Amino acid sequence: MRDVVIAGINAIRVSEYWERSLRHLAHDAIMPALEEAGVARVDALVVGNTLAPLLAGQGHLGALIADFVGLRGVEAVHVDAGDASGAAAFRWGYMAVAGGLADVVVVVGVEQMSERSAEEVNEAHASVLDQEYEGIHGLTPNAVQALLMRRYMHEFDVPREAFAVFPITAHANAVGNPNAMFRRAISEKAYAKAGPVADPLNMFDVSPICDGAAAVVLCAADKMGELAKTDKPLVRVLASAVATDALAVHDRKDPLFLEAAYLSSHAAYTQAGLTPQDVDVFELHDSTSIMAALSLEACGFAARGQAIRLAQEGGIGRDGLIPISTMGGLKARGNPLGATGVYQIVEVVQQLRGEAGECQVPNARVGMAQNLGGTGATAVTHIFGRV
Amino acid sequence: MRDVVIAGINAIRVSEYWERSLRHLAHDAIMPALEEAGVARVDALVVGNTLAPLLAGQGHLGALIADFVGLRGVEAVHVDAGDASGAAAFRWGYMAVAGGLADVVVVVGVEQMSERSAEEVNEAHASVLDQEYEGIHGLTPNAVQALLMRRYMHEFDVPREAFAVFPITAHANAVGNPNAMFRRAISEKAYAKAGPVADPLNMFDVSPICDGAAAVVLCAADKMGELAKTDKPLVRVLASAVATDALAVHDRKDPLFLEAAYLSSHAAYTQAGLTPQDVDVFELHDSTSIMAALSLEACGFAARGQAIRLAQEGGIGRDGLIPISTMGGLKARGNPLGATGVYQIVEVVQQLRGEAGECQVPNARVGMAQNLGGTGATAVTHIFGRV
Repeated sequence: MRDVVIAGINAIRVSEYWERSLRHLAHDAIMPALEEAGVARVDALVVGNTLAPLLAGQGHLGALIADFVGLRGVEAVHVDAGDASGAAAFRWGYMAVAGGLADVVVVVGVEQMSERSAEEVNEAHASVLDQEYEGIHGLTPNAVQALLMRRYMHEFDVPREAFAVFPITAHANAVGNPNAMFRRAISEKAYAKAGPVADPLNMFDVSPICDGAAAVVLCAADKMGELAKTDKPLVRVLASAVATDALAVHDRKDPLFLEAAYLSSHAAYTQAGLTPQDVDVFELHDSTSIMAALSLEACGFAARGQAIRLAQEGGIGRDGLIPISTMGGLKARGNPLGATGVYQIVEVVQQLRGEAGECQVPNARVGMAQNLGGTGATAVTHIFGRV
Repeated sequence: MRDVVIAGINAIRVSEYWERSLRHLAHDAIMPALEEAGVARVDALVVGNTLAPLLAGQGHLGALIADFVGLRGVEAVHVDAGDASGAAAFRWGYMAVAGGLADVVVVVGVEQMSERSAEEVNEAHASVLDQEYEGIHGLTPNAVQALLMRRYMHEFDVPREAFAVFPITAHANAVGNPNAMFRRAISEKAYAKAGPVADPLNMFDVSPICDGAAAVVLCAADKMGELAKTDKPLVRVLASAVATDALAVHDRKDPLFLEAAYLSSHAAYTQAGLTPQDVDVFELHDSTSIMAALSLEACGFAARGQAIRLAQEGGIGRDGLIPISTMGGLKARGNPLGATGVYQIVEVVQQLRGEAGECQVPNARVGMAQNLGGTGATAVTHIFGRV
């Protein structure tokens, strides 16, 4: 397999774009990424999206977006893995380049949710769960994650307020990220007073309904000189791994252990020849506070039931053991579902390039991005390293 | 890149399965394919599907189906390219094995449409078109293809009745295929009397609303002895190519030329080092009679406006220049959208193995399958050869 490097990145600010449609958002993400990469040609476009069929009646996004951004004719497909679609799309790009089937691939994650009501979005979002066993009972992703949080509080004897450390860290980090939706710090007091969304999850535990698009240009390392003209520091893909778990949470042996996150992160460590101790930045899937805790434990950064203690002891901050949500995470940068996985990758690349501005983690050389689908039923993990 | 061979295939009969849901249909396709392949392990599952989010509120099909067929934990994703999702999913499998990222991959195409009304299905199916320019005006895939047929009749001075040759051939072939939905021959008289669906398309020009699932097991050629125990004749993937065109037909320079079908078929010829003359069997995307004609022309089997003449002179029959729809095609085997591309591949493999029974094309050594999405906006072409 060939080495794969990131030749260009770009993301638009996560927000509500009432006046733009899906194709426009994708365009706004892709064009500056292609320009930064300075690529002579593009062999394929891969789209990550979760809800366009349900929210806009629009499928077949590969051909739609390829044409709209001036790439008519190229190979183009849409990859779906629930909320992990963005990173799953990146994996198609990585496979194509690493395997020698393409030299230059652009991957875009895009989601447009704000045009529809919160009720419509929540119902559509339940399509990432098991419809016949979960959705049919009215469960939504937030509702399932609320059940996990309640169980975690019971199992590990943790009070609700202890979860505050995750959104407080995420919001504090988002202040320095111009692409973040919420560039406001929040306090423990604000967290304690926030209204419930799905008890025990409150407003500051959940990620927002929003729109966004992010793009990454991948290139074969041995073709960079010939096909891409960029003066950006190069970042290489060190590992790429996907794993799954039961879609319905009741079917899992232990609902508080994210088996897919464990499997894909550890497969990635093996591929890269690294351990969790080698990871300088970890963009994890903090769709809710509880998912941040469970991700840290599944990926080997904290023992079972110890993620909150790790966070409270400063372990997840910029100078901590394992900095997470360094640009705001899903919570404060925003969680435009099918785009989120590509935002995470863009942010890891920014950190490794030393371009993260106020959010910069000092001396970041190895970064990991993990995108989860549903209640962690799909986990897509990528590890990146500065060349 | 490594050589990739087909280790196992299976398809269920295309029909209406009121009592089975999507996951059951996928299971029924996958298990016998895995058994035939006799594989020791499966590294990944790829799902092709077009409408499950819209018709069943169910996305995230990779994790769902992986778990249900006993593959919990493996890499699993869903690939969407409109109606070309089945073949696009196969391309993920091919890339993973050819590139060395996986040794054994199972690809399943599955669609469950018959639980919903024809109105609901037609509205959902419009998601493969450009919603903002086509769907919004009430256009459906059949309606757009009717416009193309009308234009073709005008442009090449062809009467409506001349298209009869495509469904008559498809239905005659389907008689010998136990997996076909319609195992009945039809006559020119029946065609002439058939009621309109979207004028000038009549009932025999369009493919049915139906359910189906088909599966293919891919294996690295150099790992066959170690990882798969099958006594079936081996079939190798000689080429794999995807191309796109404008999603909306009005945006194309020439609506009667399927640019994506041209690009992907010719890229595939180049990869395989073959010409159209070398192809013994061509499973094309005859979602309507007009699409069969346009596919033959775009892929180099007939000059512009000459596909019907080719067909009328016996060119598309079992002993003709280029046998098409040899097991009934989309028209008579059935067109379970996201499954169709995998059915086509299963049928080509049956032909190359010499297992097509009454449908067997004598001495078939090279077969091509081409799956189209929307009005040909995505074309996925694969060429296979007997080892």
